[in-house]
Amino acid sequence: MIRVAIVGGTGYTGVELLRILVLHTDVEVSVVTSRSDAGQRVDALYPSLRNLCDVVFSVPDVDELASCDVVFFATPNGTAMLMAEQLLARNVKVIDLSADFRTKDDKEWSKWYGMEHACPDLISQAVYGLPEVNRIAIKQTNLLACPGCYPTAVQLGFLPLIENKLIDFSHLIADVKSGVSGAGRKAQVTALMSETGESFKAYAVNGHRHLPEITQGLEIAAKQTIGLTFVPHLTPMIRGIHATLYGQITGDISEVQNLFEKRYKDELFVDVLPHGTHPDTRNVRGSNNCQIAIHQPQGSDTLVVLSVIDNLVKGAAGQAVQNMNIMFDLDEKQGLATVALYP
Amino acid sequence: MIRVAIVGGTGYTGVELLRILVLHTDVEVSVVTSRSDAGQRVDALYPSLRNLCDVVFSVPDVDELASCDVVFFATPNGTAMLMAEQLLARNVKVIDLSADFRTKDDKEWSKWYGMEHACPDLISQAVYGLPEVNRIAIKQTNLLACPGCYPTAVQLGFLPLIENKLIDFSHLIADVKSGVSGAGRKAQVTALMSETGESFKAYAVNGHRHLPEITQGLEIAAKQTIGLTFVPHLTPMIRGIHATLYGQITGDISEVQNLFEKRYKDELFVDVLPHGTHPDTRNVRGSNNCQIAIHQPQGSDTLVVLSVIDNLVKGAAGQAVQNMNIMFDLDEKQGLATVALYP
Amino acid sequence: MIRVAIVGGTGYTGVELLRILVLHTDVEVSVVTSRSDAGQRVDALYPSLRNLCDVVFSVPDVDELASCDVVFFATPNGTAMLMAEQLLARNVKVIDLSADFRTKDDKEWSKWYGMEHACPDLISQAVYGLPEVNRIAIKQTNLLACPGCYPTAVQLGFLPLIENKLIDFSHLIADVKSGVSGAGRKAQVTALMSETGESFKAYAVNGHRHLPEITQGLEIAAKQTIGLTFVPHLTPMIRGIHATLYGQITGDISEVQNLFEKRYKDELFVDVLPHGTHPDTRNVRGSNNCQIAIHQPQGSDTLVVLSVIDNLVKGAAGQAVQNMNIMFDLDEKQGLATVALYP
Amino acid sequence: MIRVAIVGGTGYTGVELLRILVLHTDVEVSVVTSRSDAGQRVDALYPSLRNLCDVVFSVPDVDELASCDVVFFATPNGTAMLMAEQLLARNVKVIDLSADFRTKDDKEWSKWYGMEHACPDLISQAVYGLPEVNRIAIKQTNLLACPGCYPTAVQLGFLPLIENKLIDFSHLIADVKSGVSGAGRKAQVTALMSETGESFKAYAVNGHRHLPEITQGLEIAAKQTIGLTFVPHLTPMIRGIHATLYGQITGDISEVQNLFEKRYKDELFVDVLPHGTHPDTRNVRGSNNCQIAIHQPQGSDTLVVLSVIDNLVKGAAGQAVQNMNIMFDLDEKQGLATVALYP
Repeated sequence: MIRVAIVGGTGYTGVELLRILVLHTDVEVSVVTSRSDAGQRVDALYPSLRNLCDVVFSVPDVDELASCDVVFFATPNGTAMLMAEQLLARNVKVIDLSADFRTKDDKEWSKWYGMEHACPDLISQAVYGLPEVNRIAIKQTNLLACPGCYPTAVQLGFLPLIENKLIDFSHLIADVKSGVSGAGRKAQVTALMSETGESFKAYAVNGHRHLPEITQGLEIAAKQTIGLTFVPHLTPMIRGIHATLYGQITGDISEVQNLFEKRYKDELFVDVLPHGTHPDTRNVRGSNNCQIAIHQPQGSDTLVVLSVIDNLVKGAAGQAVQNMNIMFDLDEKQGLATVALYP
Repeated sequence: MIRVAIVGGTGYTGVELLRILVLHTDVEVSVVTSRSDAGQRVDALYPSLRNLCDVVFSVPDVDELASCDVVFFATPNGTAMLMAEQLLARNVKVIDLSADFRTKDDKEWSKWYGMEHACPDLISQAVYGLPEVNRIAIKQTNLLACPGCYPTAVQLGFLPLIENKLIDFSHLIADVKSGVSGAGRKAQVTALMSETGESFKAYAVNGHRHLPEITQGLEIAAKQTIGLTFVPHLTPMIRGIHATLYGQITGDISEVQNLFEKRYKDELFVDVLPHGTHPDTRNVRGSNNCQIAIHQPQGSDTLVVLSVIDNLVKGAAGQAVQNMNIMFDLDEKQGLATVALYP
Repeated sequence: MIRVAIVGGTGYTGVELLRILVLHTDVEVSVVTSRSDAGQRVDALYPSLRNLCDVVFSVPDVDELASCDVVFFATPNGTAMLMAEQLLARNVKVIDLSADFRTKDDKEWSKWYGMEHACPDLISQAVYGLPEVNRIAIKQTNLLACPGCYPTAVQLGFLPLIENKLIDFSHLIADVKSGVSGAGRKAQVTALMSETGESFKAYAVNGHRHLPEITQGLEIAAKQTIGLTFVPHLTPMIRGIHATLYGQITGDISEVQNLFEKRYKDELFVDVLPHGTHPDTRNVRGSNNCQIAIHQPQGSDTLVVLSVIDNLVKGAAGQAVQNMNIMFDLDEKQGLATVALYP
Repeated sequence: MIRVAIVGGTGYTGVELLRILVLHTDVEVSVVTSRSDAGQRVDALYPSLRNLCDVVFSVPDVDELASCDVVFFATPNGTAMLMAEQLLARNVKVIDLSADFRTKDDKEWSKWYGMEHACPDLISQAVYGLPEVNRIAIKQTNLLACPGCYPTAVQLGFLPLIENKLIDFSHLIADVKSGVSGAGRKAQVTALMSETGESFKAYAVNGHRHLPEITQGLEIAAKQTIGLTFVPHLTPMIRGIHATLYGQITGDISEVQNLFEKRYKDELFVDVLPHGTHPDTRNVRGSNNCQIAIHQPQGSDTLVVLSVIDNLVKGAAGQAVQNMNIMFDLDEKQGLATVALYP
């Protein structure tokens, strides 16, 4: 049994890791930390886990964490970078669901996250955990940076087009809509139901932290700089991300459907829908799937890709477990064979 | 492998059966019928099942159904009673999720359902599939009548009080709130999001079809007639039932928490919460659990029981699979070990 | 023009007062206070008020408030009682939307609100602002205690039965459901959309602060002590309260529909629906109306009253303006002639 | 008093016309037709209108309609065109909220709406009722074609850019999100709360009926052909449209904020927010306002305009009343001075 620790077990990505891992047959959740709830049973805070988890929240302690085989950080940005080095030194694998190790350029990172990076030397060791791009490197790393939710949906939708140079790299548009669980489980007026229910808005149009992460990923695929306009929106639902991606066609797209299908043929969690259909976030709710459909409206020179994920699963905890499965040479689907909750 | 057929696979209880059964390791879903969608792949209508189900909807045909070991009826009321006899005669087990075989008194049934019963003689053979009451009989029957969603939540909450004669049988009150998926997947104005979203109302206060079913179950436990006021409400969410039950205390309730815990100690899917807590429907969403809590507000002589289920799982498809597991001598939890989807 | 001040203008009752008062033709909103947002334009925080309100939030200042004819307190409990005396002394009318002056017994008040009352002597001067009960006293007072949202819906539903001694006073049950705006506009995890959306629960079953207020109002009507079980619930919508009230019939109820209609015949904002219908909170959303319907399910001895209001209007700001209209001898409907927002 | 008739009073645009018109002081609603509900009181179907409307639904009858000064058609497409000619001949003004008279090219219209146009000769007489473009023509016409909801939000956002030739006309992108009330009040599975709640999707990407209408409006402003990619989405709320508009900058945009403000300076219902802010649909819910904000993310060459309306008000019934006010030389704000319902 792989012994697992979760640092930051009271946020939504933390409890989502628990939802997945308590049924994962190769794993034992040994440690779940929370400074604020230390001493309380996990299932007292989360009654959905009753009879499935008898762990008690503890204060994070490096020795205790180091007794595990892998430590997931489901913490706010800036926490994992303070502990990763010690854990790696003691041969513990680290899977970080925060943004600490996603961006290769620590200066850029500091600009967006408003703090100095605590261990810039480690960044280059970290592997960006998008299995559809980096599976081999993931298998070999001990330090895994889990992609953000928006970056997952956007990159999976754009990659086949970029890898095949089918669209104008300088004018990519990603109009993306997220459920409110992406804002996390912290007390804030802007995420109240009275503020977010029955209403729709864009936010952070002038610059969202996921922008440099998306750009970095697409530029690696493009092998050149790209120009991306990224507009995130808040939609009145709890789970789900819907990316609507626009590209100006520059190559031969007669085989585009085929090309997407081939690109993701061996991917367990990326599902290319029939041409011209409309993916719906409910069809991936609670599952680790990404569903993608391609459109060329009115045969114009603008291509539209629709890409949906559950932000807490493929956009966070599910992808983290997928990465863990790869890192420990397990069946990549272990613990992730759930069916989306429809309706 | 147990060969399964689902008659009426396009409604919410049908697709919920599929969600559960495609991951059930002892079962193969062989036939899914739908008159309206015959010829279409199931996963074309329900993309949440892509890569999990390659069945094509077929027109219901007794010979084809009889080739299975068990047939689930996820049909409107009045359909199962037309086919049950033939299937039983050919040694097929029948699990009916509709109301056709729930009420023992066929005259009463006709009054509430507005039609003659097609096979009144079969009713007495049918076992009412509330495992917490009838597990032994369920094990032995070939004709299983699955309880309704309201009746499940209400009976599980009231039973320990009634079996122990702790409350006044003549003035039971069940104030129950349901998500809109209980109205089914059929085109109707009253279930539109614009009609049901952001609004709350009672309905059918003068008499809901589940009333005689609940009364029948409680009277069997009470071994006498009971008086029940049942007020169903529609709450603006998709899944979940919350029953708030009121009883006037007539017995010694000092041990009531203990008594509930003992009553359900060996039940896998009934979970008695600590005294004075508040169950929340989200904590059972997508799971087969019923969570119950007991209150005696201000120490008065009115006892309040709070009981929550997912109407489509413990209130329908999950309970049906639990019954199937019992009927086929499988582990009662098979296929039902999912964790509620929170948040 | 009546000069109005609002203390605590950033909460939901504050902004709802503004929504109503900016269109009230006899009123000029002169002062809106907020310690946290002082210096900012009101319509910068609330863009729904753009072009309707050019007031700037100010720090509360007694002299400035005393320059107005009436001061509304839309503050947390414990604030109005600190300033009321000074304002009354300067001949300013005070309308308090918090709970400071609702309960006549200051010891009882302290028990529920966890603080000493700052001016117990003023309490007896305060008039409880339920116009359907106290219109004449309201006309004459300078200190108005606006009823809570739950108490408004429950009292309006029970009053005709109690005044006419038609039900058993010792076993009243109020099963009440509220939208989440009742929790206010403050940062708290429990009111996040991810916590409250798509879920239903009871809360504070062991004792909610509105219990003594409801009991006090019903006991005045009953002229004796009453026994009430009050169970509040949170329903996943923003606005609306639905009270489902149960009483054991003790009198002759053959005329009960008629009696409700007569009781509220001259009331502008209480609307008795036809017998056996089901009020829906959407039909009063944004309006000052209370809609009530009466049922006697299956002709049993339990009477069921359904009563709906918008918690922010008839349950708070609307009722406050209705009281202001009465206190200033204006048309009681002024500013309140809006139609509910359906759908 | 202007005598008003509403044909098709049971849909959402019909009941929204009633919500507005019952408080309009220059208007008397005399006739409301509905084939399905003829004989029933309007306020029995819509209890939100109790005490405000004592009209009884009638079967549409030309003589009765012709006794009014103006007839609103809140009907499905294809109805108004059958009656308009007779009404105009009898000197009745016609305001059509359906699509019958919006598109100037009846061949194009037939292609999208799947029927022959019944009176192609009338089309050229019809004035497209976007007051911000056609106020003078509206004043003089008797046949008014009310814009669609998507076209209103998209045109108001793009117009200043197009009129000033600031963006590339050949690659306009409109990514638009609508609440579900846009689907109307008819029984259909796709608009059920269980289908649309807690989920987000694009639809009709290959061609939505509002595309030719938007294109026509923008081409008139551009005085040349334009290329538009229009992707509509369904968002899980009842009211509201949020258009996110993208244009490649071709002109000098240093004055773009100023230019928008000047363009709409005298418009009562178009409100240009400060540069870089984010309009939220809740801030126009129930009001006739359009709120617009402009962004130039990261100073790139892509301009982003955010434009929000309430689809049932500025996108339908409110704009229809605004047009009526213009046609009858009334204050353009009459009946429309409501404040958005926040929260």
